[in-house]
Amino acid sequence: MADDKRSLITLTTDFGTSDGYVGMMKGVILGLNPQVTIVDLTHEIPPRSVGDAAYVLRRAYEFFPPATIHVVVVDPGVGTARRAIAVGSDAATFVAPDNGVLSYVLSHLRAIAEKIQAVHLTNRSYCLPEVSGVFHGRDIFAPVAAHLSLGLSLDQLGPEIRDLVTLPSPYLNRQQDRIVGQVMHIDHFGNVLTNLQRPDIESLGPGVTVRLGQLRIEGLKRAFAFGEKGEPTAYIDSSGHLAVAVVDGSAQDRLHCRIGDRVEVRARRAVSLDQGESHD
Amino acid sequence: MADDKRSLITLTTDFGTSDGYVGMMKGVILGLNPQVTIVDLTHEIPPRSVGDAAYVLRRAYEFFPPATIHVVVVDPGVGTARRAIAVGSDAATFVAPDNGVLSYVLSHLRAIAEKIQAVHLTNRSYCLPEVSGVFHGRDIFAPVAAHLSLGLSLDQLGPEIRDLVTLPSPYLNRQQDRIVGQVMHIDHFGNVLTNLQRPDIESLGPGVTVRLGQLRIEGLKRAFAFGEKGEPTAYIDSSGHLAVAVVDGSAQDRLHCRIGDRVEVRARRAVSLDQGESHD
Amino acid sequence: MADDKRSLITLTTDFGTSDGYVGMMKGVILGLNPQVTIVDLTHEIPPRSVGDAAYVLRRAYEFFPPATIHVVVVDPGVGTARRAIAVGSDAATFVAPDNGVLSYVLSHLRAIAEKIQAVHLTNRSYCLPEVSGVFHGRDIFAPVAAHLSLGLSLDQLGPEIRDLVTLPSPYLNRQQDRIVGQVMHIDHFGNVLTNLQRPDIESLGPGVTVRLGQLRIEGLKRAFAFGEKGEPTAYIDSSGHLAVAVVDGSAQDRLHCRIGDRVEVRARRAVSLDQGESHD
Repeated sequence: MADDKRSLITLTTDFGTSDGYVGMMKGVILGLNPQVTIVDLTHEIPPRSVGDAAYVLRRAYEFFPPATIHVVVVDPGVGTARRAIAVGSDAATFVAPDNGVLSYVLSHLRAIAEKIQAVHLTNRSYCLPEVSGVFHGRDIFAPVAAHLSLGLSLDQLGPEIRDLVTLPSPYLNRQQDRIVGQVMHIDHFGNVLTNLQRPDIESLGPGVTVRLGQLRIEGLKRAFAFGEKGEPTAYIDSSGHLAVAVVDGSAQDRLHCRIGDRVEVRARRAVSLDQGESHD
Repeated sequence: MADDKRSLITLTTDFGTSDGYVGMMKGVILGLNPQVTIVDLTHEIPPRSVGDAAYVLRRAYEFFPPATIHVVVVDPGVGTARRAIAVGSDAATFVAPDNGVLSYVLSHLRAIAEKIQAVHLTNRSYCLPEVSGVFHGRDIFAPVAAHLSLGLSLDQLGPEIRDLVTLPSPYLNRQQDRIVGQVMHIDHFGNVLTNLQRPDIESLGPGVTVRLGQLRIEGLKRAFAFGEKGEPTAYIDSSGHLAVAVVDGSAQDRLHCRIGDRVEVRARRAVSLDQGESHD
Repeated sequence: MADDKRSLITLTTDFGTSDGYVGMMKGVILGLNPQVTIVDLTHEIPPRSVGDAAYVLRRAYEFFPPATIHVVVVDPGVGTARRAIAVGSDAATFVAPDNGVLSYVLSHLRAIAEKIQAVHLTNRSYCLPEVSGVFHGRDIFAPVAAHLSLGLSLDQLGPEIRDLVTLPSPYLNRQQDRIVGQVMHIDHFGNVLTNLQRPDIESLGPGVTVRLGQLRIEGLKRAFAFGEKGEPTAYIDSSGHLAVAVVDGSAQDRLHCRIGDRVEVRARRAVSLDQGESHD
């Protein structure tokens, strides 16, 4: 590694930050590569929420340099037969359990035609000398990421695999006058984030109605700050997807959404045709 | 940049740490300047609390090297006409929305006679190629800070401005036998922090009485550890201002203060003259 | 310091992350040594919980390179006569208040026959120019750690001391057919962690019964993922000690343990001999 370059590792876990678990991973990484920069993506994935981690990682990874190594440890199956894997591409490298947590980044990489190489982490010479049954983040994923940041190639880590575990795709149904999707994530502000993309919504024409639970919102604002104070407001979030916020408040406190809840966007003409219909 | 120097960026936001938003900002910064060190000041400013962010930044910035670039993203007006700004001085550089969040640092810089240069961030060549309507932290403030850390001068970012938005000054009234101020912040320990400064309090003479809501505390302790266990104790905090703690407990749990609440310090003689007076 | 090496400082506090206090410590450190890497072990030690900090530090420090400087600021006696100390060894260096927070690392260092040198931080030339009565983390511990990371020797910081304050040892009673210990920590997942070590448990023979409060668990699983969903499961944690988890849930939500609670492991034969006995 040249003197003027520093490699980059991100960490995404459900460990919280109260116990020093993340610190131990960093100690292991920096013991192997003192030059690496480590960035916490988040450690507040709800315990065992593989899908939520997959979503957060998918949104964030594109904003990192392509040489970044992303370590994800949301790993309820640690110590069982589930595989530990590393996945490489020209856009990013990932180290994670093979439980679907990479599903959304991998489908994105495929969508942009990136070539992907996945390996099963069977070579214990790049792990800590003693591998516990309960903390592969520290004992396998951290040291493997550190070795990758030093230039190790994926080939050295174990055999190539092609049958990665994949999460079911989020619900998405495009029709001519409406698209139906789902809630993907609730953020720190209580904003409700969905999988409905801007181009699909724009294809419905100039006026649309958003339906989420009992709620019906007419039109999208250019930014949530243009909504009425205290009112639910639909807008396109910073990842290009439909979101619902309450201006100066929390949409989640108002709507009590859950990940997976149905969200619908209708062309306004379609709405006017069936106004007698029930909302749910 | 010389090999033996590393530039420094701090981040202060109301983003929380659960969604990867801060991580995305770091990815953008490190993609532009892999050598920079990034320090989180806090990401737990209460949502949209511009004044609280102004307070936390004012207390912390002096402890960083003068070349540090402080990025503040508490930005309820994102996507509206509010300006994005950068402010430079020999003591520190700031990148933030123009909503008053720099008020307290700027009044301090003026008080110590630092020359200040402020610019409106209109030059989009130092932003991300696509600027969303809802996440200028990632799309404007992060890349601008990274470019500044690489040596870009403020002039390049946009036209100079002189009409920065400013928060109202915290309430402060000095009289001969008393000073009246306000609660500025409640910290993690439940300590209640005010804007009354040590020299002003000392000018009242050797004995003083602190009044905060229904509470009356006689005298100040040299450190809160000298207070009685479980009792509200007044002391001078680490920024040189009056504070109230409960020893081995939380003053906030006892007092239920709010930012802006009135706090008064009286010379003891003044107190003895009007002991019949009601406390509130 | 050579160009290709970077020194490492960890921080463990009860400061939380909402007020910028940790940020100020980092500003002080990086102002003195811009090259150092700083790792947060945790800032969520419960306020004033010296014993919990001692436990977290003990578990984590071994995973850092031996040249690491560990700063611990859980310091309810700040500003009183309690001493500020630094402790060096070939395995790690520590900077902390002398209140017992290093007890568990020091007894481990003694157990592995490391030579220890402890000094009282009396030399104010390595502190900030002004030392407050309430924030020695920023004014003493941070600058001392920075100077150590630059190569300063412990001798320069103050006189050697040998009478360090020590916490009482956690309860531990080994008998032929049972061992009794205590709860040491409850982690982010609600896992209940104890001080009973794997070799002691294994010495009881192939089958054991774990007793914790009203709970009785037969046998240990190789990883908590092998337990029944929703059921309390005993296993050996990643530090080699007995722990109890609830699979896909929180043991703490079920058991409402407290640090110090009694935990017992019995050889199965012993259990069968006294099955009529009450559990508590």
